[in-house]
Amino acid sequence: MPEASTDRVIVFDTSLRDGEQAPGASMDLEQKLRVARALQALGVDVLEAGFPAASPGDYEAVAAVARQVEGPIVCALARANREDIDRVTEALRPAGRKRCHVFLATSPIHREFKLGLSTTEVVRRAVEAIRHARQSFDDVEYSAEDAARTEPDFLCEVVEKVIEAGATTVNIPDTVGYAIPSQFAGLIVHLRRRVRGIERVVLSVHCHDDLGLAVANTLAAVEAGARQVECTVNGIGERAGNCSLEEVVMALRTRADHFQLRTGIRTQELCAASRAVAKASGFAVARNKAVVGQNAFAHEAGIHQHGMMANALTYEIMRPDDVGFESSQLVLGKHSGRHLLRHRLEQLGYRLDDVRFERAFVEVKKLADHKKELHDGDVEAVVAGVLHGAAVGQWELLGVSTASGAGGLATAAVTLRGRDGKEVQDAACAQSPLEAVFRSIERITGTAARVRDYQVGGVDGESEVRIEVQHRDRTYSGTAQAADVLVGIARAFVEVVNRIDASGRSRRELAESEART
Amino acid sequence: MPEASTDRVIVFDTSLRDGEQAPGASMDLEQKLRVARALQALGVDVLEAGFPAASPGDYEAVAAVARQVEGPIVCALARANREDIDRVTEALRPAGRKRCHVFLATSPIHREFKLGLSTTEVVRRAVEAIRHARQSFDDVEYSAEDAARTEPDFLCEVVEKVIEAGATTVNIPDTVGYAIPSQFAGLIVHLRRRVRGIERVVLSVHCHDDLGLAVANTLAAVEAGARQVECTVNGIGERAGNCSLEEVVMALRTRADHFQLRTGIRTQELCAASRAVAKASGFAVARNKAVVGQNAFAHEAGIHQHGMMANALTYEIMRPDDVGFESSQLVLGKHSGRHLLRHRLEQLGYRLDDVRFERAFVEVKKLADHKKELHDGDVEAVVAGVLHGAAVGQWELLGVSTASGAGGLATAAVTLRGRDGKEVQDAACAQSPLEAVFRSIERITGTAARVRDYQVGGVDGESEVRIEVQHRDRTYSGTAQAADVLVGIARAFVEVVNRIDASGRSRRELAESEART
Repeated sequence: MPEASTDRVIVFDTSLRDGEQAPGASMDLEQKLRVARALQALGVDVLEAGFPAASPGDYEAVAAVARQVEGPIVCALARANREDIDRVTEALRPAGRKRCHVFLATSPIHREFKLGLSTTEVVRRAVEAIRHARQSFDDVEYSAEDAARTEPDFLCEVVEKVIEAGATTVNIPDTVGYAIPSQFAGLIVHLRRRVRGIERVVLSVHCHDDLGLAVANTLAAVEAGARQVECTVNGIGERAGNCSLEEVVMALRTRADHFQLRTGIRTQELCAASRAVAKASGFAVARNKAVVGQNAFAHEAGIHQHGMMANALTYEIMRPDDVGFESSQLVLGKHSGRHLLRHRLEQLGYRLDDVRFERAFVEVKKLADHKKELHDGDVEAVVAGVLHGAAVGQWELLGVSTASGAGGLATAAVTLRGRDGKEVQDAACAQSPLEAVFRSIERITGTAARVRDYQVGGVDGESEVRIEVQHRDRTYSGTAQAADVLVGIARAFVEVVNRIDASGRSRRELAESEART
Repeated sequence: MPEASTDRVIVFDTSLRDGEQAPGASMDLEQKLRVARALQALGVDVLEAGFPAASPGDYEAVAAVARQVEGPIVCALARANREDIDRVTEALRPAGRKRCHVFLATSPIHREFKLGLSTTEVVRRAVEAIRHARQSFDDVEYSAEDAARTEPDFLCEVVEKVIEAGATTVNIPDTVGYAIPSQFAGLIVHLRRRVRGIERVVLSVHCHDDLGLAVANTLAAVEAGARQVECTVNGIGERAGNCSLEEVVMALRTRADHFQLRTGIRTQELCAASRAVAKASGFAVARNKAVVGQNAFAHEAGIHQHGMMANALTYEIMRPDDVGFESSQLVLGKHSGRHLLRHRLEQLGYRLDDVRFERAFVEVKKLADHKKELHDGDVEAVVAGVLHGAAVGQWELLGVSTASGAGGLATAAVTLRGRDGKEVQDAACAQSPLEAVFRSIERITGTAARVRDYQVGGVDGESEVRIEVQHRDRTYSGTAQAADVLVGIARAFVEVVNRIDASGRSRRELAESEART
């Protein structure tokens, strides 16, 4: 078997082609260009921009990427026929570095049910297509669609013939996510042993995640000598998606001791690329997604937090800033221990004696039982309760009414009861009834805060509201349920204002006590 | 090396313990019981219900599961000390079948930075804890936390000693998601070769997904002789989460030809369990999640849809009903081809001549460029445009105003312009201003439809609205952006009403033309 010629793994991104093909992920031209720029910043080696023969929009997108993106090789897909290949040639004309990617299925089930072609016809058609592509391109990739379910000896035959015909990269896709790592590695070894001329081309793999094995199959193939990995950011793609770029890149990097390989990816751009693709595709990243998920570097369990404070290596194998996260996040929640609360309170400037600390700890745990996570502002409000012996509720919502109309201003009127029992009413207007509700509450309470994010959803008349509020350098969270979404929004905001108010009192007291000492 | 004694893999679910430990995933007692019932229906062998020493709430939850769940072995976690183990004993008293799960870290970094213990002390403490647990339990599991980063020979020593002390299951966790499948399999082989008495216990693995390899590592360990897999539904858990139950189970089943192993999971309950865990934890499942994601059996690309219509095996390796999905979903979107549109139109009862079909195809592609996916009702509306030569817009939104108040009724007034140019106004009241907007529009247009789901979100004053509407047996989608959320809602609903109206006209025309022929 020939030695793998290099320790450099080529990263081929297909977020804009196979990724965008996912039901519900389609992007318009502007969205595609934003993703392409993020991929350029990330340093992908090959950027597959689309499938020009699929639609005029796809053609336009490929041509636009070819004009605007510099650095990566811009690639476009074609079926194994002249018309598709000629469309690729035209669309990629403006590109500096370019590749034509021709695919034709090789598995028995695709030959019989999709193509209606014999093995001889598949070989002939693939060879003709590669020859035709080589007339316009120096860089031509051939993909044997559904290779993982193809008879290994027939696959060897096809691959050998397309290499003779001039293919410079040969890709072995696991189109339906059927492969098992040990087996898939065996297939790569088989190809590298049996195919004449295999050492002249880059051997590539393209894995799907139907059984959750796309990354593992890709890495197993790389261990067996493949040197191009086809992947998408966030693992978007048909069905369960493609091999996730960020996972395969960070596995190669984190376990460089094992793989002894490198990529050209600027890993600190991974989070930015993930956000760009999530926004453009509309596919939200799961909170527990590896490498780029919101929780990838977050810890709540007391035992883990204790370990993290002693040495981050106890529970983290990557550094968050390596992938573009600001830092590890020790989340205060019901599983957190005293260690973290004391640490967090010290960061916020509080030094509580043991009795008060224990009371604060109990109150924080109680609050955490109702809320899934606590922000700094929420914690400070608890401390306020402990320091002042006061309940958190300074203000109580008695009533809210709104009026709004298209083109005009929205108005809201709010009635709150203060701690002194007095009812206070005020109104405000704004572009939207939500804003008007916030402004009315601010007028009454004197607390100006910015709602950074809100989510409302629900069915059958019951709305769930979640808001995240910024006040000076602190973030607070509020949640509420209500039949009327505006009442829910008002309740959540009053809850937050009460906490802001309580935190302010603790901070004033802190400043005064420091002034006295 | 001893033969693996059985072809049955024990499925140990820790959604309620390691899963719930994820920042933001905490569940209250009622939520935990709902998940426990879903796990019971799923047929998990071992159900880890919590960590009783962690908090009174955790203790209560374990005790409640122990009282209410029958079938699975109910398990609870303890650190390697008497107090924790005694709490487990108490909490599990009501359980029919029960297990005590004791953990103590073994890796150098955990010994030094977290525990401050020498290797001798780790062994002594683990052995004492197992002996103590065996006084109350026949079924005792020991976990060597961070085993994957532990010196293999020391790991052998610890495992041998805890087996002598009476452990019946020994678990090898990859606590930080550091392992590579080939290497992790090697560790399992090493243990099975070197440890005296290893054939008397069930060897288990517990993998984390930090590099996207949790499922692959678990399967590699099973190939090497492990016979218990620890996992969570949807892969929730610390950081990037745990090995996903549905993926490992479906990989074993789909590739039974390779693994020759079986589990006791009722796979057709997987989707139900996934939904239960997503709802209780608040962790949404990614659309491209393997096995249970919304897209797992969805196809939009024309080439794939063509293949699927010929034979589902071309692009699917599992049947959707095997995991509790109703059916494969061929999604109409911008990548879809004529095959699917013709098929879908026939299902809806339309037979268009070639000229009209081509016009419909072009219009569907245009609509799909703006919307990420199209429901049946949306398609029918396009056909209406083609059949009647009319634009889709029957109604135009001119104005909407709302008034609402806490405790009282919300009212909305809406002005629409009909196709005849006449302005029509009406008002309605409801529990919420959203409902009032819908009811007003229904009064004017005469179209009664149920909003099945809505999502509103946004920052800086611009709201994004998405609604899904049911009308008779059809589903429609509407989207809009507006500064005022209620205006956005009204726009999206009018868009849908226009499509319902158009679809109705096509269906009437269809019925009439059929009556004529």
